[in-house]
Order: sequence, then C-alpha cells, then structure tokens
Amino acid sequence: MTKIDIIGRGNVASHLKKAFASKSDVNIVNPHTLSDLREDSDLYLISVKDDAIPIVAKKLKARVCKDSIVAHTSGTTPLSALNGVCRNTGVFYPLQTFSKDVELKYSEIPIFIEGNSKRVEKLLKDSASLISKRVSMADSGKRRDLHIASVFCCNFTNHLWTLADEYLTKHGLDFKTLLPLIMETTRKASVSGPASSQTGPAVRHDQGILDAHCRRLEEEMEPELQDIYSLLSLSIMSHHPKK
Amino acid sequence: MTKIDIIGRGNVASHLKKAFASKSDVNIVNPHTLSDLREDSDLYLISVKDDAIPIVAKKLKARVCKDSIVAHTSGTTPLSALNGVCRNTGVFYPLQTFSKDVELKYSEIPIFIEGNSKRVEKLLKDSASLISKRVSMADSGKRRDLHIASVFCCNFTNHLWTLADEYLTKHGLDFKTLLPLIMETTRKASVSGPASSQTGPAVRHDQGILDAHCRRLEEEMEPELQDIYSLLSLSIMSHHPKK
Repeated sequence: MTKIDIIGRGNVASHLKKAFASKSDVNIVNPHTLSDLREDSDLYLISVKDDAIPIVAKKLKARVCKDSIVAHTSGTTPLSALNGVCRNTGVFYPLQTFSKDVELKYSEIPIFIEGNSKRVEKLLKDSASLISKRVSMADSGKRRDLHIASVFCCNFTNHLWTLADEYLTKHGLDFKTLLPLIMETTRKASVSGPASSQTGPAVRHDQGILDAHCRRLEEEMEPELQDIYSLLSLSIMSHHPKK
Repeated sequence: MTKIDIIGRGNVASHLKKAFASKSDVNIVNPHTLSDLREDSDLYLISVKDDAIPIVAKKLKARVCKDSIVAHTSGTTPLSALNGVCRNTGVFYPLQTFSKDVELKYSEIPIFIEGNSKRVEKLLKDSASLISKRVSMADSGKRRDLHIASVFCCNFTNHLWTLADEYLTKHGLDFKTLLPLIMETTRKASVSGPASSQTGPAVRHDQGILDAHCRRLEEEMEPELQDIYSLLSLSIMSHHPKK
C-alpha cells in the first residue's frame, strides 16, 4: 500500500487525487491544511502555483520522515527548488491542461519524472505508472523544451483562434462556423502528422491570395494581424519549399 | 427532383457527390469527362482548382440550357469568374478541409451561398439545405474574410504544430506526447471560447518564463522560433492585459 499526500487545492491536485483514488493499492489524502498531512507517507506531491512551491517545501521540511519522497508537479520549476527539504526529492509532472469538472482519460496523460537518485526515480515511476501508461523520465532541460513546444502547440494556437474570433465578430460572422474545420484540422494533424497535413495559400505558394489577404488586413488597419500573417506565411513557405 | 452535375475529381467534388447521393429528391452525376455532362441539369457545380474554374466555365458555356445554374465551390474565386457563362451563376462554398476516405458529418459543414439574382440564391440555398443545416449567404468580401480567419485558425495553427514537432524531434522527444494536450486545448476553446481558455506564460505575464524560453531558443540558434515566440507572446499580452 503506497501512502500519498497531495498538497494543493487547484485543478492539477484535484485531478491527481481523482486519478489515484480509484487505485486499490494507494492510500491517498488531500488535506485542507498542511497540519493535517500525515507524517509517514511514502510520497508528498506538491501541486501548488510555481512561486508557492519553495514556501510549501520549507514548511514540509520539519514534518516528513526520512524515507519519504517530496516531489512537485510543475513543468517549469527545477528539481533544485526542493533542495534541503528532505533526502528524497523529485518531480512528477503531468503534461495536460486541467480544467475543473472535465473528465480526462488519465491513462493517456504523459507524466514526466525526475528524481535526485535512481531509487527515487524508480519509486516515482512506479507511482505514476499506476495512473498513466505514458510515463517517461525528463530532467529540467527536457521539461523546459517540452514546455516551449507546448506553448507553440497550445497557447499560441489558442491565441490564433482568439484573433480569428475577434476578426469574425468584427465582420458579423461567428467563430463557431469554423469549429468543424478546426476539429478536422486537429484530427488530420494527429493522424498524419502536421507537416504533411499543411493546407492553405502559403504552402501552395499562392502569392495572389497571400497579397490579397495582406492588402485586406492593411485596409482594415489590423497591423498586428498583418505582422502575424506575414511572419507565419513566410515560415510555412520556408518549411515547404516550392516544388 | 433536382438534377445536379458535379464537375471535378478532387476531394470536394467526391464529398459533395457522397453528400447528395443519399438524398432521394436529388439526381446526381459526376462524370469523368465534360462531354458526359447532362444538358438539362438544374445545377452544375464546378469543383476544380481555382485556376481551372475559368477554363471549365468557358467549356460549359455552349452546353448548359438557359434555366440552369452554374456555380463554383471555391472560397477565394469571385462570382464574376463565371460572368458570361450563362444567365444564372452562383457560388456554393462548403467551409471544410476535405480528405479522401474520411467520413464527415455533412449536416454540420457550413455552406456559404452567393447568386447573381435572388432566384438563384434561393435555389442554391434550397439545394445546400438538403445536405447541411448550416447554410448562409456570403458575398466575395465575406468569403475572403472567412478565408482569412480560417488561415489563422487552421493553416497557421497546423504550422505551429509542425514547428513544435521539429523542435521536439531535435530534442529526442515525440510530438505524439503533446496530442492529449492539443485535443484538450481544442475542446476547451470550442466549449468556452478561445479568449477565456487562454493559458501559458504570456497570459500570466510571467516574464521570467518568457525570458527563459527566449534565451533557450537563442542558445539553440532558432531565430525563426524566437521571432514567432516573441510576436505571439506580445500579442497575447496585449489582448489579455495584466490585472
């Protein structure tokens, strides 16, 4: 029986609690206050905002027994943020965007592990494998590279949808109109890979359409959209040279 | 019984054929050569590459009877490309990215209609409504604005996935790792709207992470990624001011 204490009240903490709660060989608590933490748990998962991690870690220092592991769940905080807290420290980073009240297939969520010893890494890997079949090792450098890639894949793509939403609203059109197209684009990229799924005027090197779109954005005084349109179109053309 | 002839052998043509084929009050043909077209059809849908539309239109000129409608299915070609072909011309533009061998829910695909008379617009709208419940009117200007928005929503987002894929591969990581995150981002934006779903360092105005990512991209000599990272992060920050 593995005893796990989860520290934090946010979305990641509540999803981790839910994921572990259904496992018969895990005994889990997610107390409301630090003073309710158990003193003899095998694993303490600190799942709080990045800047609160050192504060929580400091408070844990006096409370955990010497064989316990203290790990945080952040993609961007280095393992060294837990230095001095206890003998066994690690990172237990689930790569997903968690929302309240949304059911997720936990077994598909990648979890990235780092530990300050081989033993810690093995124990964290074993715990993560209880809830996910996509567990791998990643040190701070690898986590940062993953994070950069996820900024491009998720944060930036979502913002492009925001820009399109505003543009369509300005012209009396509805963003929802584009949802079937967005869904199908996502499906194609996930099945065939994004490079071979690229469509649009830039990949066809259709200079007539590219110029017409830029002129239109200029006429409408949308310099931000124009800059983004030009930069991304050039990037598409350089990644897909004219045949 | 509406007689429809579809001209073209590409994905749009074959999906339109499929969508109409199941309708009992439509009689549809999609012949291999122009000489096999019927002469008395109600509607001719020209579904060929943009630059081939005037060529096909010219060949149709002598063949269609005076009450027929000739319409193209392009989002970017103006209605005027069909001037002089016959009395009744129009545009029948399904907004979707079509792939061979992929089943689509046709009733959800938006179709945008334009006609050179109210009568043509009504007839095209009626035909489109047979296969889709999302039929609306859109002239060339509106179609261009939709196209610009779909370039942002689909072509550019797909390219950001390509950039992330290349970056991950360079670091021994797998783009597939990010798929659950991409799917969840898409789902959230479609349910709650993209602006309120925005996550990441830029929307949090987390300058520490933004600087660390830019430094990393500079160290790795990725000027293209650096430019895109900076431009899109600035745009996110200006659309989501610091609270």
